[in-house]
Formats: sequence, structure tokens, C-alpha cells
Amino acid sequence: MVIPDTTVLTVHIDEGTVMNADDQSLQHADLEESAVFAGTERLRRYSVPALDEILGSRLRVLDDGFVRVIDYMGSDSSIVQAARVSYGAGTRKLAEDRALIRDLMRHRHTTPFEMCEIKLHVRTPIHAWRHWIRHRTANVNEYSTRDSIANFAYKTKASEWRTHPSKDKTLTGAFLPVEKGQLLSARELDLQRISRDVYQERMEAGVTREQARKDLPLSTYTEAYWKIDLHNLLNFLQVRMGEHAPAEIRCYAELIGEEIVSKWVPLAWEAFLDYVRNGLLLSGTQAQIVAALLAHSPEEARRIAESAGLLTVKPNGEIAVSRERTEFESKLLRLGLIAPWK
Amino acid sequence: MVIPDTTVLTVHIDEGTVMNADDQSLQHADLEESAVFAGTERLRRYSVPALDEILGSRLRVLDDGFVRVIDYMGSDSSIVQAARVSYGAGTRKLAEDRALIRDLMRHRHTTPFEMCEIKLHVRTPIHAWRHWIRHRTANVNEYSTRDSIANFAYKTKASEWRTHPSKDKTLTGAFLPVEKGQLLSARELDLQRISRDVYQERMEAGVTREQARKDLPLSTYTEAYWKIDLHNLLNFLQVRMGEHAPAEIRCYAELIGEEIVSKWVPLAWEAFLDYVRNGLLLSGTQAQIVAALLAHSPEEARRIAESAGLLTVKPNGEIAVSRERTEFESKLLRLGLIAPWK
Amino acid sequence: MVIPDTTVLTVHIDEGTVMNADDQSLQHADLEESAVFAGTERLRRYSVPALDEILGSRLRVLDDGFVRVIDYMGSDSSIVQAARVSYGAGTRKLAEDRALIRDLMRHRHTTPFEMCEIKLHVRTPIHAWRHWIRHRTANVNEYSTRDSIANFAYKTKASEWRTHPSKDKTLTGAFLPVEKGQLLSARELDLQRISRDVYQERMEAGVTREQARKDLPLSTYTEAYWKIDLHNLLNFLQVRMGEHAPAEIRCYAELIGEEIVSKWVPLAWEAFLDYVRNGLLLSGTQAQIVAALLAHSPEEARRIAESAGLLTVKPNGEIAVSRERTEFESKLLRLGLIAPWK
Amino acid sequence: MVIPDTTVLTVHIDEGTVMNADDQSLQHADLEESAVFAGTERLRRYSVPALDEILGSRLRVLDDGFVRVIDYMGSDSSIVQAARVSYGAGTRKLAEDRALIRDLMRHRHTTPFEMCEIKLHVRTPIHAWRHWIRHRTANVNEYSTRDSIANFAYKTKASEWRTHPSKDKTLTGAFLPVEKGQLLSARELDLQRISRDVYQERMEAGVTREQARKDLPLSTYTEAYWKIDLHNLLNFLQVRMGEHAPAEIRCYAELIGEEIVSKWVPLAWEAFLDYVRNGLLLSGTQAQIVAALLAHSPEEARRIAESAGLLTVKPNGEIAVSRERTEFESKLLRLGLIAPWK
Repeated sequence: MVIPDTTVLTVHIDEGTVMNADDQSLQHADLEESAVFAGTERLRRYSVPALDEILGSRLRVLDDGFVRVIDYMGSDSSIVQAARVSYGAGTRKLAEDRALIRDLMRHRHTTPFEMCEIKLHVRTPIHAWRHWIRHRTANVNEYSTRDSIANFAYKTKASEWRTHPSKDKTLTGAFLPVEKGQLLSARELDLQRISRDVYQERMEAGVTREQARKDLPLSTYTEAYWKIDLHNLLNFLQVRMGEHAPAEIRCYAELIGEEIVSKWVPLAWEAFLDYVRNGLLLSGTQAQIVAALLAHSPEEARRIAESAGLLTVKPNGEIAVSRERTEFESKLLRLGLIAPWK
Repeated sequence: MVIPDTTVLTVHIDEGTVMNADDQSLQHADLEESAVFAGTERLRRYSVPALDEILGSRLRVLDDGFVRVIDYMGSDSSIVQAARVSYGAGTRKLAEDRALIRDLMRHRHTTPFEMCEIKLHVRTPIHAWRHWIRHRTANVNEYSTRDSIANFAYKTKASEWRTHPSKDKTLTGAFLPVEKGQLLSARELDLQRISRDVYQERMEAGVTREQARKDLPLSTYTEAYWKIDLHNLLNFLQVRMGEHAPAEIRCYAELIGEEIVSKWVPLAWEAFLDYVRNGLLLSGTQAQIVAALLAHSPEEARRIAESAGLLTVKPNGEIAVSRERTEFESKLLRLGLIAPWK
Repeated sequence: MVIPDTTVLTVHIDEGTVMNADDQSLQHADLEESAVFAGTERLRRYSVPALDEILGSRLRVLDDGFVRVIDYMGSDSSIVQAARVSYGAGTRKLAEDRALIRDLMRHRHTTPFEMCEIKLHVRTPIHAWRHWIRHRTANVNEYSTRDSIANFAYKTKASEWRTHPSKDKTLTGAFLPVEKGQLLSARELDLQRISRDVYQERMEAGVTREQARKDLPLSTYTEAYWKIDLHNLLNFLQVRMGEHAPAEIRCYAELIGEEIVSKWVPLAWEAFLDYVRNGLLLSGTQAQIVAALLAHSPEEARRIAESAGLLTVKPNGEIAVSRERTEFESKLLRLGLIAPWK
Repeated sequence: MVIPDTTVLTVHIDEGTVMNADDQSLQHADLEESAVFAGTERLRRYSVPALDEILGSRLRVLDDGFVRVIDYMGSDSSIVQAARVSYGAGTRKLAEDRALIRDLMRHRHTTPFEMCEIKLHVRTPIHAWRHWIRHRTANVNEYSTRDSIANFAYKTKASEWRTHPSKDKTLTGAFLPVEKGQLLSARELDLQRISRDVYQERMEAGVTREQARKDLPLSTYTEAYWKIDLHNLLNFLQVRMGEHAPAEIRCYAELIGEEIVSKWVPLAWEAFLDYVRNGLLLSGTQAQIVAALLAHSPEEARRIAESAGLLTVKPNGEIAVSRERTEFESKLLRLGLIAPWK
């Protein structure tokens, strides 16, 4: 078997006219085109040189965590291939692949993105892992961490202690003064050391490892192999890169998105950023309110808001607190609009 | 055990202050509040009288199909209960439950909606069932249809033959003239009768039922028990109630949504309609274009569209065909705006 | 709507002749029988009085944990209904339902058992929850524990400290002497108190609750709503009731199995105990070895074991350590047989 | 980036001592061993030359179906890697990998097998695909078949018409005489041709493809990309290679197992055949009966069978029909034993 060239990204697959049973809107144009089955084709697995470059490398997170890519299957081309027939690498232009992937993302198609799979090796504090593991669509083999004395638990720096978020609960709070933080960090170091001592005492007393570990702090590092398809990985990133995500898992999610997914499937990543991460969703009611504002009918806008329960004025004239309304006002601001009740 | 009143919708559950590990943004206010565990409480299962009313009834679809509710678990109150502590049925107002459910829907929370489950008995042509079964998160027991001679397969009426959709592929086509449709329907009746005869001949020859059935038409009815949680049912409805959905499964999805889900979880249904069914999603780029239009900068809007690849002008001055652009123009129209390149 | 009697377990459903597409072996007899659709039937939800009795009650586990049933869907009858047509509650005898459920369990059918669903509210130490959450097929809403000072973490009693398991790793170890255990328990109480103090100090300093919690011990209690179907619940019980399961989660699994599932679906529970919990699995090779032993051919038995790699004799005549062989010898013992190489 | 040698099966991963949280029984020995993290390691993806050899090749099934491997991730080594630390390719012998994989299979561990993933392109009649798609854990993109005139539907040969299975429903029936089969095959050809004509007429009349297809026979071929992990693929093979599986899907399952999985993960395949395909499962009751028989106590064996409901003697002395009992008698025969009630 001779593989003449290891740099090509896509492979030739002559499929003939095909139709995706679940993607009615894409099928008709494709069906007009004709092609023949090659019959004797041979394939090589899709590979992505930019990802191969970092395969196995530890990408550092927090004080002793990391993420590294162990293996992967597929590429942007696999998404395209799954969504429509491919007429060989040369006949479809990159621009058309990009447009198709954006169509799929916009209409929340899932199965083409599921055709890509990635396996990561991660090291993360258990309190972050507890959020991570809630994403149930992954395949997981968790390992306890190695027993090195140093860095067995995640240590919060003096400058990293966060205060309660603001009252409207939509923003993460600021940081405590460093002097206060130094006391908290010193106290943490003490606690982690005592926890470690107790663990060692139990091991020396002959207690089972499982029981010896039961009072280790939640900040103790753990490691896992974590395998997931691209569709579900993007769901994970959407939830965990968000401003509402706990700070620690957010560091991991941002690294995975920006350093790994962006290299692996650049077209899908771009579409995800534009439509999911940075997308602006108006409800049907809210779209009506925006249209009323654009038609210079602030009274009509206000009327719609009130009748939909988005705006509630109390008997004393005050506007009732509403998270939905507050978030809508932020969306209006993004469009350069001011709510008429402001 | 005395149950004095079977009409209450919610039950009393004193949970104490609790925190949803996956829903950081909701937790802080709840944690300020105090409550005590009752310790000795007894529960009755949530029930929804409006759904109990139709339990077991065949809701008819197509010429011989139906959907009927066999069993269910949970209600709007279960969603609320899963998302936050409940202080007994009286202390939270309906308005607050509604606001919470809308928050959950807007931020695409999944697990609270998964706490509701429904089991349907459906009868549907196999060609529609083939789309149905693609939703993998349901529990399914499929039955072959009963062997009545009449109505074993779905018969398309003379007025229901659809033509190819329009060139831009975003709209379902119109119908063929009835005279033409009469010929097609008559021909279908013939074919279905021959298929049925061949099936009977095989049965009489002693062929296994499985093999005898292999040339029945795809329009043959099948039946199944189909059990699914509310989160995944809403995903199903979003895909299958849509204008791109094949006509037959769309009839089923609309019935399930409008006649069943609306009765079962009216608050979740309302939020789904407003944010998912009727929602308007702008990409980050598109939000910038709208903001530029509202700032009276059509040139800037056009510039953003071009640099993002949303608008491509060919050397001959024509605008290149783009499904993404066409759909964006429809969104602009909903807001009362005209694309500056029009 | 009049419901005359709330104690019946099953409901009348006249389905007509049906066939389970996934259960070929059951279908043929059923298809001979004829029945008619009632057309106007009304249903009540399946209910199980023995489970209704304990609905909402806290069943205690460990020093401050519990399990309570919040809601459920289905019963043994739902399993039967999903697997075959039901001709009304009276026509099939209990013995036939039992035989069918045993057939389904023996052949590892999954979908009929998935037709039953249960929702539990559990309180468990995080270190046990970390195992629990690995079962990905459940719907979960996790809550942080309430902030009572007492019992915030699971305290191991002086008599409960376990030693390392035996060398062959198949049995859990014994317990440490109580005097030694008293020291360990006292030390644990100290550590848990310090952890609690640090947590309080952080809260008073204004640190976010999420960060304040990061060094709490893994033994800290958490609470969750946990909803799962019966098929996957039985998988959970098989793994977590087993002798290899960590001691704490095993307490929960045994309670759920023996106090809840046994009441809810007694026929499925009996079949599970007989075929899964107490089942004896011989590999094809091992079945050959047993047959050779029964044919009084110990040499043949030994020869098969050696050629299959089950028995390896080192150059010095010693038998190589093999977990597979050791487990097989235990199986032989259950049948009253001795391995010929012993 | 230099890749010196493309033929090695495994890669070097120095992980340090690790512990699988879900695999308690394996962890303790591993934890005694020490190793260091290499820190700078680079990986290449696992590859399996024997599978690369057939990548993209059409493996033929039925008269016009096929299966071909499009892509894959992982190998036997990935299973081992997920289950325990790997100390570099050289230090663990093949025999130890084999023993570990057999341990995992015997104890029904799932996650290590999930670390391998494969993507197939299949062409199969819709009536077989309807069974296939019931396995919900796969990622699927289904295509309609290409529109070649010949071979659009699966044609049953004159010698392949099967008769009803035997009365005890455990064996597939025999074949009809070829003369009878010739009539049935000719009639099938007619029906398929008419179906095809009707389809063409509809297309020419301008009917949508979706509607035009609705009366095609269930035997019409369809194509799909089907991606699944090894654990779930083995479940699929266990159900679909079995003697109870419909004949057509069984052809596909046998091909996938014997021609693809056996090359991809030979150790896992061998363990699957021995413990799952050829395994012999005795219930707890049945194990007691066997032990009684081996202790020369046929009366005791019979007593156990009767009290467990396995053996029921009617008032007239006849033994009641029982599928469970019949299957148990077959298991006894495999061990060379005769039921004492025979």
C-alpha cells in the first residue's frame, strides 16, 4: 500500500447522488447532480496536520492541570461528507464547504457534527470535574491522580479570591483585595497540608485507598481520558465557556475551544463562534417589540411587553424586577436600542 | 393514607436551602432563604387533570394513524422543583414559576425539562416513522400493524400530491391539480392492492412473516410505544413541526405539541413557542449589521456583510446566491428592515 | 371521569394483534391471535400501591444520607405490555407475565424494561456520588447540601475502617481494630471541623460560595434528584450492589434494590436476582472444560485450559497467577467441581 | 515532524501511576508501580495496519449491499490504555494485554471499550435498516440510495424463501422448495418493477421525491454513514449475529464481526466470542440444579426446579410448556447432562 502524499486534508469519495433523510432542505440540489461510484477506491483516514502537531502535548491549565489530545477522528471535511455527497477533493471549493457548515450550524443540525470524535487526557481539580462529568454524552475513564507530594490540590492564588456576584446575578463578582487573599491562601495551604497528612496517616495505618481518600479536599486533582463527538463538545463549550460558568472549568473550556477545536475543525469553530457563542436570540415577542421600536412606535413596544408579561409595573409605578426583561435590555443595547420604559 | 383532594396540581415539598450545581446563576438568591425539612412528608405523584382527561384516547392523524397518551410523569411543577427548592405549593406564585421556566428555556437548560416523561402509543406510516426513529433519546417498542385489510397503508388523497419545492429550497412546493392527483391516487391504490396480494400469497405459501413483509410499501402503517422526556420531546417538535419537515411527520408533531404538550406542561409549552419556535436568531455578525443599519450606516452594514462572506459580489456585479444571506434577509424583514444591498 | 377502584394494578388495553420488530422470537404465536381495538378506551396511569406507600419517605443510609422515591411511571405490567399485546387484565395469568419477564431478562432485552421510570431524591457523600454520576443514562439535578452545622460530612465510625483487600484483589478487606479506628475517627472529626471553619471564614470574607466550597472534604454530603429507567437502574444495581463496589455506594444500591425496586416491579426484581445477580457465566471454553470434567476426562479438561491460555504452567512447574483462572475455579466450586490442576 | 515508522501498533505513553475510579478491582496493583511523566512526549494516532488494508473497500452483502470502513479511532491498545496506565509499548507483554481485556469483557466493563470508535458506510435494504437503526447509540447520516435502475431493491432468490419457524419458536425455519420459490421470486420481480414504474411516473408528474418514494417496497436499498463505539458495536453484534436475528441483518452483522472487528481489535474480538457469543449463562437456580445433578441428587434437582417454577407438572402428569425450561435443557446438553425430568 503506497500513500504518496501525507499532506492532503480530504480524500476522494465518489458517492453518486445521495439524499440525507434527515436534511430535506439540502437534498434537492444535490440530487440533480450525477456521479458514479468508483468501486475500487481506497481510503486513508482523515488527518489534520495542525492537530497532529500538538498530539500528546500537555497544554497547561491552572497551577497543575492540563489538557492533551490523545486521538481524534474526522475533520471539517467529515462534516461536509456526512451532510452531502462529496465529488472528490477538488470539485467543491472551500467557500462551499464553509457555507454548508454554516447552514448546518444555523439550523442546529446534529448528526454531521457527530461524525467527528476527539479523545482528550485531562487533569483537573475534582470540584471542576464535578461540573465536567455532568455532560453525559462523553466516554470517560477517570484515573486518580498520581501521588506526587507537590501540587496534589489546586491552590488559589492570593489575587484570585472572587467576591459574591452582583445582585442581578448575571455577572461574576470582582476579586478580594490581595492582602485579604493572602490570608485565605495561607489558610488554604494549611488545610490542604493537614488533609494530606491525614491521608498519609490512614495509608500507613493500612486503610484502603478508597477510604483514605474520602476527606481529601474537593480541590484535589484527578485525571481522565475523555472522548466525545464534536456536536456534544460544542454543547459543552457553549455551557462552560459562558460567563455563568464557574471560573475553573471555564479556563479548561476556553483552552479546548481556542487551542484545540479551532485547529481541528476551523470552519465549524468559526460557525460556532458566530451563531452560538456570539449569537443573539430574540423571542417571538421580543422580535415584535424590536419591530415596533424600529417602526417608531414605542407605545406599541411597551404595550406588547406588558401584555406578554415581560414588563410589569407595580401599583406604585415601579417596574418589577425581571431577569428576562434585564437580559432583553442588554440585547437591545447590542443593537443600539433603548427600551422605551427606561 | 388519606388523599383528601385529587385536583391539586402541585405537592408540598419542604427541601431546605439547596443549590443546583449546574445552574450557578440561579442559586444565590435561593441560598439566602431558609426552610426546614419536614422529615415526615408523604407525597402523591404529580398529576395533570387536563392530560388525564385524554389518557388513552386516540387522537386521529392522516387516514388511519393516531397518537394516544399511555402514561406520563411530572408537570410544570416538576420542572420548577428540579430547578429550585419548592417551599410548598402556596408560597411561590404562578408568575414566578412561569418566569423561572422561561429563564430555563432561554438559557437552554436541559436537566429540569428531563424530569418530565411521557409515553405515547402511535400509529404512523413507516416512511414517517423512519424520520421519527432518528430521534435516539426515546425508548421504543415497535409493533407491526394489525392485519386488517382496509387501511393497511397510508393513501394520499387526490388533492395532496405535492410538487417540487421552489428553487431556493426554503419553501415546500404547492399541490398538483386534482385531476392529475386523481390519476396518481388511483395508481397508488392499485399498487398497494398488488403489494397486499403478494403479501397474502406469501403467507399462504408458508413464508415467514418477516420475509413476506419485505415488499410492502413504505406507506404501510406501523405502531409503537414511544417514551421520551420533555427536553428531548421539545427537540423533536422543534425539528418536526418546522416548515422543512416532511408533511406527514409534521402532522403528528403538530398534534403532539398542540393537543398534548400544551395540556401537560402549559408554561413550558408557552416558553418553547416564544423562544424556540418563534425565536429569531442573529449571528454575531448579523447583530452587528443590524446595529449598523439602526445607526443609519448602510455602507458600514454592507461592509460588514462583505468582509464576513455573507455578501459576495461577483465580478459582473451580480450578488452570488447564498442561503445564509437569503435567510438573513427574511430575518431583517421580520424586524421591518431592508438589506442595504437590495 | 369516574375511577371506581384505585387498587387495580393493570389496565385494560385491547391492542389487536401486534408484533415487536425487535423481538422476533416472541411474535409468531401472538400474531395468530386476533383481537379488536376497543376504540373508546380510557386509561388511568399504572400505579403500584406498595410503592405509593413509601412515596416521599426518607429511607436512611449512612449517618446522614437518605433515598426517597419522588415519582415513578409504570410497573411489571408496563414491561409486559411493551413486550406483547395485552388482552385485558384478566386474560393473561400472573404466571405468564412472570415467564415473559424472565424470558426478556434472560435474553437481555432492554426496551421493555425502559418503559418503567423512577425519580429518586438522594443525599449522599460526594465521594460516593462521584461513582454514582458515572451512570450516564440518568437525568440529574444536583443540589448542594443544606447548610446545617451538624452532619455536613460523612463520618466513618471507629469500627468501620477497612484494610487493604486481599492480594487476589477479589475480596474486600477486613476492618481495623477499633482502638486504631478510634484514633482515625477522632482525627477525621478534627479535619472535618477545620474544613468547616475554613469554609465559614471564606463565607464571612465575602468569597463566592463556589470558591469557598473548593476545599471541603470529598465526604461532604450532596443531594440530587435522580431519574432513570428500570433497564438502566438494574445495570446500576448490578455494578453497585456487587462485592467489588465501594462500601458506601453499595449501601445505597442495596437499599434501592431491596426496599424500592422489589416493591415497584417484583417480577422483574426476581428475574434480575436469579439471572443477573446470582447468574453464573461460563465462557465457551469454560463450558467445554466443565463438559470434559463431567465426562470424566480431567486430562482433556486440563488440555483445553492450557490451549486456551486459561492455565499456564511455568518452566519451574508452578502455575502462573491468573485472575481469570481463579474466578473460574470459584465457579467450579459453586457447581461442586474441583479444577483438575488443583 | 518526523514519523520514522508507520508499522508500530502502539505508542509510548508514560502516564505515571493512575487509578480507574470505576474499576476498583484493577487499581491496587497498578498503584504500587512507579513511573514518571515524560512531559514532552509526542503521540501519533493509534493505527491498525490490518484495518488500513481494507479502508474504503466495499465488502459485499446480499445482492447489492455492502459495508465499508471509512474511518476508525483506537485499537486493542486503546482499551488497555484506558483501563490502566501504559508503561510504554515494550514493558507489558501481549499476554498481559489479552488477560486484561478478557477481565474487562468478563466483568462487563463498558468504558474502556468505548474508547474505540469506527465509522462505516453501509448499503442495506430498508427492512433490514429498520432493525439496524434501533441501536440508538450510533451516530447516523442516512442517504437515499442512488437512482440506478437495476438492483434498486433486494431480490430474494428462489432458494431463499424461508418457512415459518418451528413451534417452539427458537429455531429459524427451513426453506421452501425451489419450484415454489421460483414463483415467489418472479412475482416479487413483477411487484418491484411496478413499484419502480409508479415511482417514475410520479417523478415525471412533478411530485416531490419524498412523496414519490412513499410506496417503494421495504426491500429498497438505502445507504448510511454509521459511526459507533466498540462497546455498543459488540452489543449490536451480539443481538444481530444471533440465531434469532432476521436473516438479512444477520448477514451484515456476521460480515462486520468476522471481517472488520476481528482485524481491528483481535483481542477484544476473541474475548467477545468466548464470553458473550459462546458464553453459557446459568441462573442462580439453574446453577443449584446443576450442582444437585453433579452431587447425584436428581430428586433434589427436580425439587429445586419445581419450587422455582422452572418445572410445572400439570394435574394430568404432563409437563407444562416453558421456554425457560427448554432453553435450560439445551444448556444442560452442552454440559453433557440430561434433565432428570426427561
